[in-house]
Amino acid sequence: MRVTSEQRLEDGVLEREFTLGEIPGVLWTPARAASAAPAPLILMAHNNGLPKRDPRLVARARRTAVYGYAVATIDAAGCGDRARSAAEEQARADLRRAVQAGEPADEIFESVVGPLVEKAAPDWRTTLDALLALPEVGGPVGYSGWTALGIRLAVTEPRIAAACFFAGGYVPRAQREEARQVTVPLLLLLQWDDEGNPRQRALDLFDAFGTREKTLHANLGGHTGTPPFELDDKARFYDRHLGRAATSAA
Amino acid sequence: MRVTSEQRLEDGVLEREFTLGEIPGVLWTPARAASAAPAPLILMAHNNGLPKRDPRLVARARRTAVYGYAVATIDAAGCGDRARSAAEEQARADLRRAVQAGEPADEIFESVVGPLVEKAAPDWRTTLDALLALPEVGGPVGYSGWTALGIRLAVTEPRIAAACFFAGGYVPRAQREEARQVTVPLLLLLQWDDEGNPRQRALDLFDAFGTREKTLHANLGGHTGTPPFELDDKARFYDRHLGRAATSAA
Repeated sequence: MRVTSEQRLEDGVLEREFTLGEIPGVLWTPARAASAAPAPLILMAHNNGLPKRDPRLVARARRTAVYGYAVATIDAAGCGDRARSAAEEQARADLRRAVQAGEPADEIFESVVGPLVEKAAPDWRTTLDALLALPEVGGPVGYSGWTALGIRLAVTEPRIAAACFFAGGYVPRAQREEARQVTVPLLLLLQWDDEGNPRQRALDLFDAFGTREKTLHANLGGHTGTPPFELDDKARFYDRHLGRAATSAA
Repeated sequence: MRVTSEQRLEDGVLEREFTLGEIPGVLWTPARAASAAPAPLILMAHNNGLPKRDPRLVARARRTAVYGYAVATIDAAGCGDRARSAAEEQARADLRRAVQAGEPADEIFESVVGPLVEKAAPDWRTTLDALLALPEVGGPVGYSGWTALGIRLAVTEPRIAAACFFAGGYVPRAQREEARQVTVPLLLLLQWDDEGNPRQRALDLFDAFGTREKTLHANLGGHTGTPPFELDDKARFYDRHLGRAATSAA
């Protein structure tokens, strides 16, 4: 793991950009005493890759670090700025066009996102190994964000102890099946009027998750309209399941 | 308002039983300095009336008082131990029998609960007047619990500034209509497998509420299975909208 830039932010959070072989990523860690216990790690994934250009998502990561968590995000294979084949680019363009035109997008979605989850998951596991080797980062590990990848990681990666999924209207077939095998505590965050995520499918997915400890939070509004207080609720969800580091910045 | 018993509980909360004409009630107020600002009031209603015999509901009221709120509950007209006509008792028995037998209960429900809401609402308003006259109790006022009555109060009582509704699977026609007129911030708490409250109806009701600021929390399990952390979430909902008294007990 090679740190390519390092910056102490005004809220005390340390922001480090890194590369791990081909994988670029960002790690935010809370301000803390040298003697403090390692901060529990939260993997924050987005299906467009790194949220570096999305101030909303970066603010979310920083705030979660202020709560006392180490937060990491990467451009996994096929996501964000990572190289894609001409066929992959074409499939993505087809998907965008179909969604914008309001055409049925299930099959194109399946052909784009199904393989994306398969390719991305190993990069997240590689990242998990590297980050947990840092003295300031510890387990148990939480997951946040992209639902389909989160399902795959939750059922294949025993180090993940709790997960918060967002949206969930479109999830590839394989992950809709795997949802029944998810047994970690779960918070599903749903925007009631999410223009790109059919509500009933998200509700069906919530119903399908195998875990006994699952909570759904739904708020009015579109995809990017999640109210700020949900970030606090999410932090408390992690606090319950990951045990917040005692010496967090605040 | 006549206080019939008064008890300081070990968490510092003062529990007072009172009568207000024919209305029996209980008021819980937080431990606080004499100079403290009045505690915002939360009306906690249950369609079976006073939760005095339900330790789960009493614990909920006390905990909310510990958070810094004044919490009140009454036996409104037709509820709990209040006198009922032979016809009313018969209708209630018919409803119980139909529900237990798994028969369609909509019409009986309508004939029992429709009039109950009409009769109960004025008693809650009388109580609100009396409680807000106490120096230690103030506004803005929150509402918690029984959905149908809460809808009626939220649309007819401008002093109610935020409401937390529970279940909502069965709501009389009049209140299903009135739901569109509810404009105060709302938290709807739903048990995903509530044996007595059809899930889809509760989701439809959430959809129908007129307020722009509404949040749904759903958890797995039956009617009485709401996880303890939802009480904390609810307190934070009230904190956002009612402004918790600065000098609460803790």
